[in-house]
Formats: sequence, structure tokens, C-alpha cells
Amino acid sequence: MAARRSFWAWGLETDEPSREEREQAAARLSKRYGREIHAPAAPRIEDIALRAPRVIPPAALASLCTTDAHERASHSYGKSYRDTVRAFRGEFPNPVDLVAYPTDEAGVLGLLEWCGGANVVAVPYGGGSSVVGGVEPPHGDRPAVSIDMAKLDRVLEIDELSRAARIQGGVLGPALEDQLRPHGYTLRHFPQSFEYSSLGGWIVTRSGGHYATNHTHIDDFVESVRMVTPRGVWESRRLPGSGAGPSPDRLALGSEGILGIVTEAWMRIQARPRFRASAGMTFDSWEGGAEAARRVVQAKLWPANCRLLDPVEAGAAAGLKGDEALLIIAFESAEIPQDAFIREAVRIARESGGRIDDGAILIADGSDEAVGRQGAVGAWRNSFVRAPYQRNLNVGLGAIGDTFETSITWDRWPEFDTHIRESVLAALQRVCGGGTLSCRFTHVYPDGPAPYYTFNGPGRVGGELEMWQEIKNAASDAVIAGGGTITHHHAVGRDHRPWYDKQRPDLFADALRAAKKAVDPNGVLNPGVLIDP
Amino acid sequence: MAARRSFWAWGLETDEPSREEREQAAARLSKRYGREIHAPAAPRIEDIALRAPRVIPPAALASLCTTDAHERASHSYGKSYRDTVRAFRGEFPNPVDLVAYPTDEAGVLGLLEWCGGANVVAVPYGGGSSVVGGVEPPHGDRPAVSIDMAKLDRVLEIDELSRAARIQGGVLGPALEDQLRPHGYTLRHFPQSFEYSSLGGWIVTRSGGHYATNHTHIDDFVESVRMVTPRGVWESRRLPGSGAGPSPDRLALGSEGILGIVTEAWMRIQARPRFRASAGMTFDSWEGGAEAARRVVQAKLWPANCRLLDPVEAGAAAGLKGDEALLIIAFESAEIPQDAFIREAVRIARESGGRIDDGAILIADGSDEAVGRQGAVGAWRNSFVRAPYQRNLNVGLGAIGDTFETSITWDRWPEFDTHIRESVLAALQRVCGGGTLSCRFTHVYPDGPAPYYTFNGPGRVGGELEMWQEIKNAASDAVIAGGGTITHHHAVGRDHRPWYDKQRPDLFADALRAAKKAVDPNGVLNPGVLIDP
Repeated sequence: MAARRSFWAWGLETDEPSREEREQAAARLSKRYGREIHAPAAPRIEDIALRAPRVIPPAALASLCTTDAHERASHSYGKSYRDTVRAFRGEFPNPVDLVAYPTDEAGVLGLLEWCGGANVVAVPYGGGSSVVGGVEPPHGDRPAVSIDMAKLDRVLEIDELSRAARIQGGVLGPALEDQLRPHGYTLRHFPQSFEYSSLGGWIVTRSGGHYATNHTHIDDFVESVRMVTPRGVWESRRLPGSGAGPSPDRLALGSEGILGIVTEAWMRIQARPRFRASAGMTFDSWEGGAEAARRVVQAKLWPANCRLLDPVEAGAAAGLKGDEALLIIAFESAEIPQDAFIREAVRIARESGGRIDDGAILIADGSDEAVGRQGAVGAWRNSFVRAPYQRNLNVGLGAIGDTFETSITWDRWPEFDTHIRESVLAALQRVCGGGTLSCRFTHVYPDGPAPYYTFNGPGRVGGELEMWQEIKNAASDAVIAGGGTITHHHAVGRDHRPWYDKQRPDLFADALRAAKKAVDPNGVLNPGVLIDP
Repeated sequence: MAARRSFWAWGLETDEPSREEREQAAARLSKRYGREIHAPAAPRIEDIALRAPRVIPPAALASLCTTDAHERASHSYGKSYRDTVRAFRGEFPNPVDLVAYPTDEAGVLGLLEWCGGANVVAVPYGGGSSVVGGVEPPHGDRPAVSIDMAKLDRVLEIDELSRAARIQGGVLGPALEDQLRPHGYTLRHFPQSFEYSSLGGWIVTRSGGHYATNHTHIDDFVESVRMVTPRGVWESRRLPGSGAGPSPDRLALGSEGILGIVTEAWMRIQARPRFRASAGMTFDSWEGGAEAARRVVQAKLWPANCRLLDPVEAGAAAGLKGDEALLIIAFESAEIPQDAFIREAVRIARESGGRIDDGAILIADGSDEAVGRQGAVGAWRNSFVRAPYQRNLNVGLGAIGDTFETSITWDRWPEFDTHIRESVLAALQRVCGGGTLSCRFTHVYPDGPAPYYTFNGPGRVGGELEMWQEIKNAASDAVIAGGGTITHHHAVGRDHRPWYDKQRPDLFADALRAAKKAVDPNGVLNPGVLIDP
């Protein structure tokens, strides 16, 4: 039998760190914080008393449902800092009452119909990787069922001529790629949550993936969406482009489970890249690197990767001295050698002060398919995908740490960055007595970057959530006051609601509320996410 | 005083063809159709008795409003085939009652507020170029005011760093470009209606413009929208990218005036191109040309132009023999020489049977800014923009002719094309006793082309509208039955409603209806467009 997902850690139960590994982490933190820290025992599901289920599914749906405590606990939280701390503590005051695994669209329809009649809340669940409270049930008297789409996990059809595939919404990243690979294709959507996030989840959260420029969000890769709402199926036509009214797909994209559950989508897929070229360029200043990134993307070279690391991140992640910014530019193509592209990008970046030896520009000419998939790029991708496991080690030890991300127009940069750093570092000082903040650009647009911040500070065991919340509030307040978006690709969920409410036009919220009411008249789906009922 | 717009012809009154020019057109058609045709007198506004205005504006708004007959007639129709025939005949059974020219946002708000209270329909009007009944008032007892945004025509702000500009919604294409040009920028959005279409109109109709690949529709150039609804202002944040809920802008895009009137938008602008490269390649077959276009765009070379003309169009428009298809590929950039790009595109297209001498590949190296803006490309653009004037000549002479456009995934091509040609040629035979149909790709996507069809047939003076409608119905039925969209960039308006209703998900229509009700509770804005009240 395959290993179960951990109910508190990122990954499987077999990924949970051992007592020894956690003691080693505690020793490292003891040294860093200058006080003695010990690793508490990891939680065991059998020690946790969950509230008894408040609802019983009807006989016709009973075979899809479980009240198993491990399942209920696993489905009550996502994987945010806050979620991991609460789960590690065994704090589950508001668990979902049931977990359902529909095996087909009829099952999803049946579940939503029952929820509507029985006043039960339905919480759509893909891979459970939300870091914004997106899979957590609302507080209140209504029972809640988590609808886990894991069994709708197949690539149903590949249209090689159009480079598109019909894919079920519940498939997780690795299984999706495993089904496309034998045909020579890939979706090439690699969010950090790749291992435990689903196609449907990507669509309803407007996930940002592999590509750093041009088409970045999953939005642009959606050809059509099939979604089950409480009133039935909503399916758009497969179209390469259209001007017929507002795009139905663009209303489904970002709807975070309040309008329906994505059962299938036609997705634009990619031929697997053979030609690659990349360059890591150093800059004396963060500003110089930002200018280079801006100019490369404004020249519309559209590199697949265009990540700028501030000196702190460049030091930690790439072994630089800590006083240089690093701009990683990479191109890839299934059809076309990429030398000309990388040389133009390097030429432009050099004009903004970027340094690289010509010999350090890496070019894979397509003769060996493995080249470029291994080496530095492969290592970076592995470490990127492994990063969420790091949190497993430190939970319960009092460390405060999280990431937040946004996007901002160039005219507000770098003042925006200064403002964010001042606000968050002040909060870290106030709350933790100090800490660190670093930044990278994960995506770059002609009109502005998508900065991604990481903060860390020493906390107190038992006080982590309040401390984290104060810093998170400071960061979110600064992002919104500075003109950014509360999220570039992490979504809104329940956690970002207060700031999302300041960001979106009030009249759009009214329109969205009305649209939801039209397809979900009983308010079954994710009440309180994005809008109040 | 500047010349007025013609109330029946494309352009200004000074663009109306003379009696002599129309007699020459009649002689040409007489020869082609083999029967004697004479040009009737052009209509004069003073000969047309419009229904008396059914409403009087309140004193506070009176200075913005006019009941002038020329204004009312001009604002009662767009510029479709049907509109031009009706206007030329002087048939205005359902004119707007008033035309209002707000001078600022407060004026727009005031007008909508009055409409709500007085049960008056508001029809937003930009350049009046709709070919789908998009600026025509609904039939019925409610009086209608056309809100012409012409006086909100300024570029308010240019953010050079972010390459974005804040622009008022009523500005027409030429005035917009005139205001960007001194700063070295351009929106580079050149629909065929360019001279008489507005930024706000482009946004609410999801206009398709200059670029044939990658970012084609105005959608992708919108950074934020400010829109006046009957309940007040809806304004989104300026953001390069976001994942915060469904995009508010994407609901405004394509809303065709049913949700609000765009008063301002931040638009992503372009540096003026200096480097250009282009190639016109011939193919023995239409299929070979389509394969080449598909492969170039699937290779993600993203040419600015990638237009494929079938042998008929290549013969008529480019002087070829009529047995070859023509693929025009062109690249442009403000920053980067484009030789490498065009050579890759030519290499790929040759693999699909494309022919061009190396010496015929045109490359402008940026040393002379004028190169490439003149010559063939300039001539083509001029003839493209001049095309709508051609209809002025033939109206009233019994000629039936129109265009329709769609998009379709590659897996359905070329069967889709075969089906369209059979259906429309059969209709032409039945209705006109014969006629011609030709096709070009105006835009090309990795997952499919956007084919654009032109049909012509001999009609009867006085019977044009019924004959046109039968052919239009056959074309639209075939497009929808074949899996296409009823419009790739012409919009839905009142004319495409029956087919749009088959295309969009029913539940999306319910959601859109509810969203409209939320921002336009009295149903003031364009009732009957996109959805029924």
C-alpha cells in the first residue's frame, strides 16, 4: 500500500522528518537564536480528538465518503505556515465533517446536490497545497464536506495537431506530466507545489508556473474549462481565441471554488524542449539587475526564465558573496536553437551593468536531449520543488518564517521595495527582536516585476501564530498601501480576504457575488472565500 | 468647421462618393452581373422624417444633449452591411431619441443616473464602427440616448518606465496615436476600423488589432480599466499581473456596454519599432500554407504579422496568379534586429513547401527609421484602413457582400474550411445564383487559426437585406456547427446573438445576467446585447 499523505507535514508520512532530524534542526536553531530549543514529539492522529461528524451522507453517496480521522484532519488545512503550526500542535477545532472522493462527474454533481438540500458546505480539494486558507472550511454551524478530486486524474485525450490535451481536474502535477511525457509533450507548469497541487486547483487559483515572462499564469494555457456547479455543468467551447463577450474561462479562472469544481479542461501543451540556453549574470546592485530584467522583457525576447535574486538570496541560493544580485536568464525551445536569443539578452543586460564571461553562457544545441535538463537547471528545479519539505523540520521549534508575493508597475519600483523592507523589518524587530527579509523576482512583465519575499525571525514556541500574523499583516498592509496585488500567484483564500477586499473594485465584488448566487443559489461552495455570502 | 461624419457612409461627409463615382461603380457592377444597374441618388438627411424624440433631458444635462436629425441618424446604426443599406435607403424606423456628448466622467454618471430614473435606455457609443448592431438601440417603448464618448479623447499620462499610458475611453485611433507619437510610443492597435473606433470600444468588444500572434486582442494590452456603471465607478488596480480572484478587467473586456462605459484605461504601450523583417512566401496549396503558419507559431517565434491568404485573396490582393496561397510573415522590434527571427520562420515555412528567394526577404536594420514603415507594409496598411470606404461605392446597387470571422482548433482544420465554403457557396447559389467566397488567416495561435472570410454575390436592389441575411445565417450556422466562435474580434452585438447563445455556456449567461443586474439594476445599459434582461 502506498504511503499516506502526512496530516501535518508537506508530503507523505514517509517524508516526515525523524526525531533525530528534528533534534538536529532544533540544535541549529538553538545556536542561531542563542537559546536552548528542543524538538517536541510529532503529533499522532490517534491522539487527536476531532469533533464528531455533524452530518451523515445519504446512502447513495456513502461509498464516496469517509469520516476517517486522518482523512478529516488532512483535509481541514492547507499547507501555509499557519496550517502547519496548527496541525503540528494537533489543533483541529473546526475539522471538515466528511471527506468525499468522487470517481466521476456524476459523483461531483450528486455531492453538490446533496449539499444544497442538506445545508452542507462543500470545500473543493485538489492537492491541498493552499497557503492561503483555500481548503479550510468556514467556521459556523453548517457541516462541511471536503470534495477531494484525486480520482479524476487522467489525461483523456491529446490533440497533437493543436498541441492541446483534455485533462481531468484532479490530476496532480507529476501524474499529469507522466501521462503527457510518452507522447513527447508537457504542460510545463511547475509551481513550487507541483507535487501536491492539481490542474483544477491551478485553474481556480490562477497559478503561476514555470515561465517567467510572456505567458506566465495557467490562465493563458487554458483552452476551455468544464466545471460542475450546483446548478449543473458549465463548459466552454475549445477555441484558440475569441471575442465573443466576456470570456467564460476568465471568470472560472481565479474563482477559488466558489462557482464550481473543475472536472476537465482542454489545456495548451508544449513540445518538450530540446534547445536551451542560459546565463547567470551578476550585478553590483539590485537596481541594476532590475533594470536589466526590465529591458530584456520590454525587448520582448520572452525568456522562459528571468529570475532576479537580491544579494541576500544570491548569497544563500547561489553561493555568491552576498553583495551582488544575480539575474538568471534562460531560453528553451523544441524547434529553434536559442543562441541568438541568449546573446541578445546578455547584450542588453550588460548595458545595465550585468557581468558574465562569454564562456559561461550555456547553450544546448539539441543534439543531446538530456543536456540542460540535468546540471544546474535540473538541480535548481529539484531544490525548488524540495523547498516545502524544509518547513517540516522547523515546525514546533518557534521559528517564524514565510513568503509573500505581489506584482507592481516599474514606476513604483524600487520605492515599493524600500517600503516593503522597512515595514516588514520593523515588524520583525518589534515582534521577534530581529530577522531577515530577502527578495527575488519570480516573473517579469513589460510593465513590472512580480517580487517574491521571504522573511524569517526567531519566535517563541506557543506564540508563533500571533507573531506570524503580526508580521503577515504588516507585509500585506505594505503591499496594498504600496499599490501591489495581495497575490500574484498564491491566491486569496480565507487568509488574504481583508486585503483583497481593499484591492478589488467594490462593484466587481457585487457582480461576482451575484454571479455566484446565479450558479450556487444555496451558497454551497466555499462560502466566505473571495466574497461574503 | 471640420467635416461631419456621414450619416450613411464610412467616414466623413467629404468621403461620400460623388454621383459620378457611384455611376462608375454601377457600370462596373452592370458588367459583372450582366444587367443594367443605375446609381440612385444618395440620401439627404433633410429628406428623412425621424420619429419625434420621445424624451426630453433634464435641464442639468440638456447642454450635453442634442436632437439634431443628422446626429440621431448617425448614432442609430453602426457600419455593418445591413446598417449601410438601411441608412442609404433612409430607413430609420427606430432612431435614438437623443445623442449626448458628456465632457467628463461626471457627465457620464449623470446621464446614467437620469436614464435609470426616467426608464431611458443608454447606448454607449465610441467610434460607431460596429458591424454587429452594437450601437443600435433596442426596439420597444423605452426612449434611448446614445452616449457618444468623443469628448473624452485625451492621453492623460504616460509612464515611460512601465511603458503604459492612461488614456480616455472615447479617443479614436488616429488621435490616440497622435498623442503617443511625440513620446516615441504607440499602442500598435490597428483594427480595420482604426479611424473610427475608440479605445473604450476596443476594450468592450475585445478588439483584435495589429499583432497576428502572441498578444493579439486588446485584452492583453489592458493594465487596468476605469468604467462608469449605473451604480458608480468600477476601477481596477494597475498591475502587471495578478492572481487575486477572477480578473475584474476580463469581465469588463467584451462586456459590450452592458456593464458600464469605459472612461479611462491604463494601456500597455510599445516603443516604436525600428527593426523590421518580412517575407512573402508562396505555396502550391492552401493546406501547405496553413501548415507553415501553424508550425511557425507553434515554434513560438511570435511574428507581428502572420497572414495567410488563400489563392483567391492572394490573386486579388497581391497580384498572384490565383493558384498559389501567400503567407506574409513579418517581425518588428524597437530593440533587436529581426534577421535571425525571419530566417528561422522562413526555414520552417520552406519545410512545409513555402517558396521565397533569399534575396526577397526584406530586412530593415534600424539605421533608417523610415524604412519598413513605408513601402509594401505601409501600402498594405493604408489599403487595409481604406477598405471600409469601398462599401460606400456599391451601396444601393444591389451588391451583396460581407465578411465574417472565427477561430478554430487545428484538428478541425481544413474540414472546417471545407464545411464553411460548401455552406456559404450553396447559400450564395440559392440566394444570388452564384458568388465568391475567399479566406485569409488574420491571426494564428499555437492551437488554431483565426480564419476571416469574404463573400460577394449579385443581389437585387430592394432585396439586399433579406438576401444578405440568408447568407449570413448560413455562414453563422456553419461556423457554430463546425465548432468555431461566432466572432474572433468583430463582437456579438445584436446581430450575432442567436449564435452567441448557442456558443456560451448557459450557466455563464446566467452569471453574466446576474452580474449585470448587480451593477445596472434598472437595466439601463444596452438591454438585449449579449443577454436578455
